[in-house]
Amino acid sequence: MDITFDEGVKLTDSVINEKLTGFTNGLQTVTSYLTGSKGKGVRTALLLLSATQKNGLISSKAARAAASIEILHMATLIHDDVIDNAPLRRGVQTVHEKFGTKQAVICGDYLLCMSMNLIFELLEKDENTRYANLLRVLTKAISRICIGEYEQMLQNGNVDIDVTKYLKIIHGKTAALFYAASHFGAVFSDDTNEDIRRVSAFGRYLGVIFQVMDDCKDFMFTEEEALKPVKSDTSSGVITLPLIFAMQKNAELRNLAKQVMLNKFDSLVLAKEVIEIGGVTDAKALALRYKNKAARTIADISNTQKKDALLSVLNDIEI
Amino acid sequence: MDITFDEGVKLTDSVINEKLTGFTNGLQTVTSYLTGSKGKGVRTALLLLSATQKNGLISSKAARAAASIEILHMATLIHDDVIDNAPLRRGVQTVHEKFGTKQAVICGDYLLCMSMNLIFELLEKDENTRYANLLRVLTKAISRICIGEYEQMLQNGNVDIDVTKYLKIIHGKTAALFYAASHFGAVFSDDTNEDIRRVSAFGRYLGVIFQVMDDCKDFMFTEEEALKPVKSDTSSGVITLPLIFAMQKNAELRNLAKQVMLNKFDSLVLAKEVIEIGGVTDAKALALRYKNKAARTIADISNTQKKDALLSVLNDIEI
Repeated sequence: MDITFDEGVKLTDSVINEKLTGFTNGLQTVTSYLTGSKGKGVRTALLLLSATQKNGLISSKAARAAASIEILHMATLIHDDVIDNAPLRRGVQTVHEKFGTKQAVICGDYLLCMSMNLIFELLEKDENTRYANLLRVLTKAISRICIGEYEQMLQNGNVDIDVTKYLKIIHGKTAALFYAASHFGAVFSDDTNEDIRRVSAFGRYLGVIFQVMDDCKDFMFTEEEALKPVKSDTSSGVITLPLIFAMQKNAELRNLAKQVMLNKFDSLVLAKEVIEIGGVTDAKALALRYKNKAARTIADISNTQKKDALLSVLNDIEI
Repeated sequence: MDITFDEGVKLTDSVINEKLTGFTNGLQTVTSYLTGSKGKGVRTALLLLSATQKNGLISSKAARAAASIEILHMATLIHDDVIDNAPLRRGVQTVHEKFGTKQAVICGDYLLCMSMNLIFELLEKDENTRYANLLRVLTKAISRICIGEYEQMLQNGNVDIDVTKYLKIIHGKTAALFYAASHFGAVFSDDTNEDIRRVSAFGRYLGVIFQVMDDCKDFMFTEEEALKPVKSDTSSGVITLPLIFAMQKNAELRNLAKQVMLNKFDSLVLAKEVIEIGGVTDAKALALRYKNKAARTIADISNTQKKDALLSVLNDIEI
C-alpha cells in the first residue's frame, strides 16, 4: 500500500508503540517508558524520504522498516547509557538511571531482537529478492555500531586522537545507522540499484554531519538548549572534533583537557577556549565539506522529488 | 555437503573460531578471549544429533547453525554475567570481570549480531523455504531469553515464588535456546514437519532438565566439581527449584533463605537443610518426569538412528 510521508511518520510511530507496548511480560514496564522519550525521528524522516517513489508516495513497508531502525536506535542508546553511566537523555531519566543496569542491558537486547524481527517479517511476507539484502545491511550496521562504540571506549581519554580516528568512530557509532536508514528507504522505493547506492551514501554523509554538529553543540550550547548534559564529552574522556582541531592549533589545550578529565579544571572554561581558538569553526568547516559531498552524491538520482526532499533535510541542518 | 557427527563438531568449532578471531578491530581482544572458555557444547551436540539424516550423516549447514547457537549462547552468558556481576564462569574470569562492564555489554551485542548473521547467511545461500522460519525461531528464542532473564530479576529474593513461575523462567532463560538448537538441527535434516515438531519439543524438555539439574548442583556440589561458585543462587536472591520444594515442606526455610540473602546465615548450612528435607530429591523427581516426557515425545519419529542418539543424550544426564 502506498501512503504519504505524513501517514508514513504516523504508521512508523504506531508500529513502534505496538512493538513497545503490545505484549504482557515484565519488560513491558521498561519498554512502555520508552514511548515517552522518543527522539526527533531524524532517522525515520531520512528513511521515509529515501523511500519516495516516482508517484511521490511511499510504500507502507518503509514505515515498518523505519520502526525497525528507530527501535534499533533505542536499543543502542539504552546500552550506550549503561556504558556511559548517563543519567539523562533528551531531558528525561535514562532507562539505566530509572530502572537499573540489569534492566537496561536486558531491555536493550530485547529491542535489538525486535528490530531484527520487524525486518525479518517484511522479508517473510515478500519474495522480492531486493529485500534479501536488508538483514545483511542491518546486522552489518549493528556490528559497525558495536565496533564504533568499542573504539570510542579504547580512545577514551586519549588527547592524541587524530581526525581520522575520530571520523572512523563516528562512521560506526552514528553514520552506520543513517546509512542503513537511507538504504532501507531506497530499497522500498522504485530506485535503480545505482540510485540506491547514491541515496545510501547520502545517508552516511548525513550521519557524519549530524554527529559532528552534535559534538559542536556540546561545546556551544547550554543544558536547556541541548536537552542533555553539555560540556560533558571532555570530562567523560570522549575527545571530539572541536577539541581535536583546537589541540592541533594549541598543544597546551591537551593539558587542560587532561585536567578537565581529572575534575581539576572547569569544562566551561575549556569550552570557551576551544571556541575562541577556532575548534568549533574548524569542525563546522568539515561538516560543510560533508554537506557538499552529500549534495553531490545525489545530484544525479533520477527521482527529482526525492532529491529535493533529501536536499531540504540537508539544508535544514544548521552548520 | 554431508558430514559425520565428529566432523560436525569440528566444523562448528572452526566456524566459531573464525567468527571470534577472523577480523581486526578493537573487539578482537575480547572475542579471542572467549575461544578459551568454550562450554561443553551440549547445544551443539543436541543440534547436530537432531540433524541426523536417514543416511546417518549431517548437513554441513547444521554445523554453521550450531555455531550461531553457541555464539548466541556466549552473548547471553556475557550479558548475564554483567547482570549478575559474576566473577567466574566455567572456572575462568568472566568478560565483565576481566575487561569491564562496558566491554562486556558491547561484546555481547556484537556476538548477538554475529549469531543472527550466521543464520542469515545460510538463508541467503539457500532458497529452501523450510529455512525461512529459522530467523523467526532465532529472534523468538532471543526474546524469550530476555523475558526469562527479566522475570528472574523481578522474582529476585522472592521466597514466595512457586514452581509454575520457576518453570516459566527456566523455559525462557534455558529451554528456549535448547528448543532452537534441536529445531535448527531437525530443519537441516530430512525430517517431516511432524518430526521437526517432536524433535524441537524434545530439545525444550532437555533444556528444562538441564537447568533443573544445574540448579540442583548448586546445592550439592563443591566449587571444584561445578567449575563455578556454588551455594550462590540463594545468596544472590535466585530462588531455585530445590529450595522452592524444601520451603513447601518447611515454611521456616523461608526465613533462613532471607537470612542467607542478608549474609546473616551460612548458605552451606541452608544447602544441607534443603538436601535433608528432600528439596533436591523432589527437584530430581520433576526432572525425571520431564525425562519421561522427552523420551515419549520422540518415541515415534521415523528416523530411529536419530531417536537412539537423542535418547542416549537424555540418558547420559545423571538425575
